[in-house]
Amino acid sequence: MQKMPSKSTLDTLDHVAVSVRDVPQSVKWYTTHFKCKVVYQDATWALVEFGNVRLAFVIPEQHPPHIAILGDPKAHGEPKTHRDGTSSVYIKDPDGTNVEILALASK
Amino acid sequence: MQKMPSKSTLDTLDHVAVSVRDVPQSVKWYTTHFKCKVVYQDATWALVEFGNVRLAFVIPEQHPPHIAILGDPKAHGEPKTHRDGTSSVYIKDPDGTNVEILALASK
Repeated sequence: MQKMPSKSTLDTLDHVAVSVRDVPQSVKWYTTHFKCKVVYQDATWALVEFGNVRLAFVIPEQHPPHIAILGDPKAHGEPKTHRDGTSSVYIKDPDGTNVEILALASK
Repeated sequence: MQKMPSKSTLDTLDHVAVSVRDVPQSVKWYTTHFKCKVVYQDATWALVEFGNVRLAFVIPEQHPPHIAILGDPKAHGEPKTHRDGTSSVYIKDPDGTNVEILALASK
């Protein structure tokens, strides 16, 4: 008998992307103050991993600040596939905050 | 022999508090779109639990938006103890974003 996922399982928040002016400055500050690990970094954004979730630091003119939640992007629109194999759709919450519905790359 | 926590353990992000205009509207939108659980709600803020982390929705005139990371608030200043037994200190990152160093209530 196939086991169905429990309805009580809560969704996973993959990352929160916050606006910064200077990506290296933010990466330095967070990695100095906290135990966290740089997963990706370029001049326009960085991804920093904590024990349970990730923070992204974004230059807002290049990448919009957003909240990314794991789910099925197809249920919310036409997914865009990214170079790393993930796919996602952006929707807006009632305050206009960007919420990314993100499917990780299949392995 | 007491087991010491590993130095490589990453810190835990407890919650991210985002600005909203209308707390019930945000709670309704997120709980409709995602599997998440309302932990606390009043007119000025709400706390919503995902599988790995929590989101807070705050009226910014009442509660500042912030990123809360578990740690030792005493290492960063004079902690304020809250009614629920938690204690915390707020510091600012290089962009002026409020970062709360939060110690959960001892049980």
